[in-house]
Amino acid sequence: MKVEIVSVGTELLMGQIANTDAQYIASRLGEVGMDSFFQQTVGDNQARLLQTIDLAASRSDIVVLTGGLGPTPDDLTKETLAKYLDLPLREDPASRRAMEAWMRGRGRQITPNNYKQVAFPEGALIFPNERGTAPGFALEKDGKRFVVLPGPPNELTHMVDRSLMPYLQGLTGEKIVSRTLKFFGIGESALAYALDELLQGQDRVTVAPYAGLGEVSLRLSVKLLEGEEAAPLLDPVEQKIRDVAGQYLYEVGKRSLPEVVGSLLLEKGCTLALAESCTGGMIASERVALPGISAALLEGVVCYSNQAKRHRLGVSEETLQQEGAVSRACALEMAQGERRASGADYALSVTGIAGPDGGTEQKPVGLVYVGLAGPALSVARELRLGGDRQRIRRLSMLNALDLLRRALLGQALQDA
Amino acid sequence: MKVEIVSVGTELLMGQIANTDAQYIASRLGEVGMDSFFQQTVGDNQARLLQTIDLAASRSDIVVLTGGLGPTPDDLTKETLAKYLDLPLREDPASRRAMEAWMRGRGRQITPNNYKQVAFPEGALIFPNERGTAPGFALEKDGKRFVVLPGPPNELTHMVDRSLMPYLQGLTGEKIVSRTLKFFGIGESALAYALDELLQGQDRVTVAPYAGLGEVSLRLSVKLLEGEEAAPLLDPVEQKIRDVAGQYLYEVGKRSLPEVVGSLLLEKGCTLALAESCTGGMIASERVALPGISAALLEGVVCYSNQAKRHRLGVSEETLQQEGAVSRACALEMAQGERRASGADYALSVTGIAGPDGGTEQKPVGLVYVGLAGPALSVARELRLGGDRQRIRRLSMLNALDLLRRALLGQALQDA
Repeated sequence: MKVEIVSVGTELLMGQIANTDAQYIASRLGEVGMDSFFQQTVGDNQARLLQTIDLAASRSDIVVLTGGLGPTPDDLTKETLAKYLDLPLREDPASRRAMEAWMRGRGRQITPNNYKQVAFPEGALIFPNERGTAPGFALEKDGKRFVVLPGPPNELTHMVDRSLMPYLQGLTGEKIVSRTLKFFGIGESALAYALDELLQGQDRVTVAPYAGLGEVSLRLSVKLLEGEEAAPLLDPVEQKIRDVAGQYLYEVGKRSLPEVVGSLLLEKGCTLALAESCTGGMIASERVALPGISAALLEGVVCYSNQAKRHRLGVSEETLQQEGAVSRACALEMAQGERRASGADYALSVTGIAGPDGGTEQKPVGLVYVGLAGPALSVARELRLGGDRQRIRRLSMLNALDLLRRALLGQALQDA
Repeated sequence: MKVEIVSVGTELLMGQIANTDAQYIASRLGEVGMDSFFQQTVGDNQARLLQTIDLAASRSDIVVLTGGLGPTPDDLTKETLAKYLDLPLREDPASRRAMEAWMRGRGRQITPNNYKQVAFPEGALIFPNERGTAPGFALEKDGKRFVVLPGPPNELTHMVDRSLMPYLQGLTGEKIVSRTLKFFGIGESALAYALDELLQGQDRVTVAPYAGLGEVSLRLSVKLLEGEEAAPLLDPVEQKIRDVAGQYLYEVGKRSLPEVVGSLLLEKGCTLALAESCTGGMIASERVALPGISAALLEGVVCYSNQAKRHRLGVSEETLQQEGAVSRACALEMAQGERRASGADYALSVTGIAGPDGGTEQKPVGLVYVGLAGPALSVARELRLGGDRQRIRRLSMLNALDLLRRALLGQALQDA
């Protein structure tokens, strides 16, 4: 079946916001076996919206409209669709009660125009809104289906997960299950080369690679038959991939590398301290985004100047003079000094040249050292990174965290 | 004149990326007096792309196509447009030389399909690509205009600025000049209330408010007549706004608050150190994003635990016991301790409860103290913030930086 997403909102036509709603819906359609060949965006204008809905309904089976469900007169998606389908709007008592409770719970005054949000075209299947006052809905007429969802992204994504996906799955009877394997430290082409046979030769399970910053994901997907389970089909393929590239695999699922390392620290009951130079607090900041991390992250020091490296971390004058602040020796001493000063189980350090200035022939922009000091060993790694300042900082952070991940998992580490 | 953006790419229909290209182009159209009523997205499929172009050309004056200019057979935007307009593709010698130089400069092998990127429909006005191998172009046929731009966002934005905007301005002869005033510490409704008359009553200059996280922008726009200058029209309006809300104004232009504070530090030749708890390195990280900042940012300490607050910053046991780590007294001692330890001119501190856990009745989630220690004085401010963890951390950071901004500008500060 073909789905067409119609995004409604003058703010999209003016470029005030990016259309993340369409992206989110589009990203989920494959899971329920839906195709999508067109998307349209139109402003808050009834005549043009009618024209857009008519075109979408003429070439697609399901039209998904987003936005324009608010309480103001500008918001006219529902009214326009009702007009297009020649259906009256009727207030839904359950939605009215939910809206009233939601408003009262937040101490907000209910104004007459709020009641506009709880009226729906006759025959609509209502999608409750657990994060706002405007429910969504689906309805069918003359063999075409129409879905209307609220525009605010936090309301929309929730409603897609809770209501749209089950609704679409009910229509196709198809269930496509995916599993994502995330790798760090191996490039897309190297991984594709290693898995060549697997990428070509799968019968039912498709394996699709996606490249991100410093990492690669493989998405395994399989279309299930009635009553079939996914695991027996996906597990053997995952195992074949693990046999080839298991040491680079950091996650089966959706978590990012910082999240995985944060959870691993909490699981193992280990503490961490950070000594950052060119990443400038980025590691501390990303890690602190994880609730509950305060137990594991003892402290971090951002030591941009040589003075701070000496004073706060005890890096020796000799190392700074002879090797320089961007050196393997300095990264090691930073990690060891921070581990000693903080009393943490592990300390990570990063020192490098993120650019755009500060590079020399011997030490070009992109030269970065990451260090790890732990109970059993200290190691440092040299990285030669490309790209702009932000990319170099981010890749430095990810490499430092991956080093810690490997140490926490007990992998053998050496200087590199 | 009406512009319609047509985004080409199966990756958009699959939701693999957000359509930031359309957003960027859309956000610039108003500056040259262009209207836009529709956007379309379509995959890499010739029949459907033809249908989409035909619809766009039937209702808009200018069709802007993005994406599908790469070297692979999938990339067929240019070929499809040439077919639609019944024009042959011809290689452009200057573009060919530029592409060859670009590839050689990066040590990349030129393959036959690269030459596909330097052929254009007859009569095209070529837009050079300074960031990649695929130039864009514009052409007119039978009173309709077509523009084609490359999909990668860094190439597209550059080409929009350099080539599309002058091209569009040449068509309308209209020039709309905007100036953005950015405010921190005052809400949108308070600002709108204070400026009520101004927002209603401008003859030629329109003033439009936009709300961001913790800040509000006002965009002043004026459509210029032939040979007219913008400043004499915008300056008096800016002055009226300054008279009412000047103390909240931190920027006339595009810079963010962290960028403004970073530049101010460099200008004044002052140094800074940071003691962060609940922001966890975010201030240091955002500030280090500014090249050249290493001279001003001496160091930062992320002291999540009480132990680190005592040990690294010299916060007294008494304060931690009696007032707690989240208190005005602790914020002050953190800033003063960090200023002493680092030798910096100014030190900023942040301590608070970012949630979702850790709140109590006396000290709920969102209670944050920011502190500033400087050569002349030390102050701390209490904030009561709402929203999720990330929002609370971000607002804490912005409030701390705004405190520093006011101190650097010599504004009178007091505890609040």
